[in-house]
Amino acid sequence: MKRRKGRRPGNQDTRGSILAVAREVFAEHGYDKASIREIASKAHVDPSLVLHYFASKDKLFLASVQLPFDPDRVVPKVFAGDPDQVAQRLVRIFLAVWEGPISGPAIASVVRSAASHKKSQRLVRDLFSSQIVRRVIDGLGDVVEPSEIPMRASLISSQLFGLAFARYIFKIEPLATADKESVVATIAPTLHRYLFEDLPTPGEDSTKAPR
Amino acid sequence: MKRRKGRRPGNQDTRGSILAVAREVFAEHGYDKASIREIASKAHVDPSLVLHYFASKDKLFLASVQLPFDPDRVVPKVFAGDPDQVAQRLVRIFLAVWEGPISGPAIASVVRSAASHKKSQRLVRDLFSSQIVRRVIDGLGDVVEPSEIPMRASLISSQLFGLAFARYIFKIEPLATADKESVVATIAPTLHRYLFEDLPTPGEDSTKAPR
Repeated sequence: MKRRKGRRPGNQDTRGSILAVAREVFAEHGYDKASIREIASKAHVDPSLVLHYFASKDKLFLASVQLPFDPDRVVPKVFAGDPDQVAQRLVRIFLAVWEGPISGPAIASVVRSAASHKKSQRLVRDLFSSQIVRRVIDGLGDVVEPSEIPMRASLISSQLFGLAFARYIFKIEPLATADKESVVATIAPTLHRYLFEDLPTPGEDSTKAPR
Repeated sequence: MKRRKGRRPGNQDTRGSILAVAREVFAEHGYDKASIREIASKAHVDPSLVLHYFASKDKLFLASVQLPFDPDRVVPKVFAGDPDQVAQRLVRIFLAVWEGPISGPAIASVVRSAASHKKSQRLVRDLFSSQIVRRVIDGLGDVVEPSEIPMRASLISSQLFGLAFARYIFKIEPLATADKESVVATIAPTLHRYLFEDLPTPGEDSTKAPR
């Protein structure tokens, strides 16, 4: 199919083309350096049309990553309420997304493809730093030293990525078929520690679990 | 290139063909149901030639997964000595494999491809259940209830897979560039808990880290 030249009328096809171009541009230049102007120009549309469809660079980025949930809705839900319950809520929502009839296959396919394509890895990285960390700081900046939040968030992502790979992608037993509440009960204390407890610094004795 | 019919002479080419066939058969039938006899037959060689090159089904399986380390050498090293140091040694050896100039790229490519190919996912799963869990039971069966070891091992794999994805594949900062000893100090207590502490059962309060 040949691409038409010139400005396009606003329709679903245009929206899809903008998304496809945005995915390329974000993957190539990264979230920070990508601009609405460049994406619009490469999609042969006016920047105002990009904003008409996607409202902001942020929303356009999220749409281009094809996340099956909206971090703007989900992340604040995790951090609302008692901080002692944050870790539990986080695991529970994470499992719900992965086990949803529509969101599950969608996120599995995003993660699978990200694991094998360098460009998608940059999208995952940018998604994390531009979308997740900022919202965690919004949610927990009063409780935890804000400068520590990127490390805490990356540790949490390591446990959650791994849970997804072990349970849903590699299907390692018995974790793959364990009931949800045991998974929550087992994984939440790890996330709780990564979120709230002092992280050991090099040189400290790290042989034992914290007590 | 056409495959020659009939029995092949023993040479490097034959070894490679056996490996390629073995990878297919293990991926299709799983480790348990795959047999040397079937692999030999599909590779048009005598079963004794398979054993000549690979010594056992176990070793053939390991060679076909292309792990850049030998679990027979590495896993006992982790479990030798003080159980309080097991988690630390495990993270340290895991990082050393991923950061080795030869083993690092090799394991990254195995894991990347496993993440996106169903057949390789079965290999990872079988590698885990047939190779890793058994050796952990050998190493820790006196210290930990053996029937709990598969769950403990799958939890550990979830954290280690996730560490690998976050640090080496998605390169999420600051975890991606944190110095090795901080990573050991931060991740080891998680593995220590998964290995040795009581795992919560559903219904228990799991909101707080264990104390």
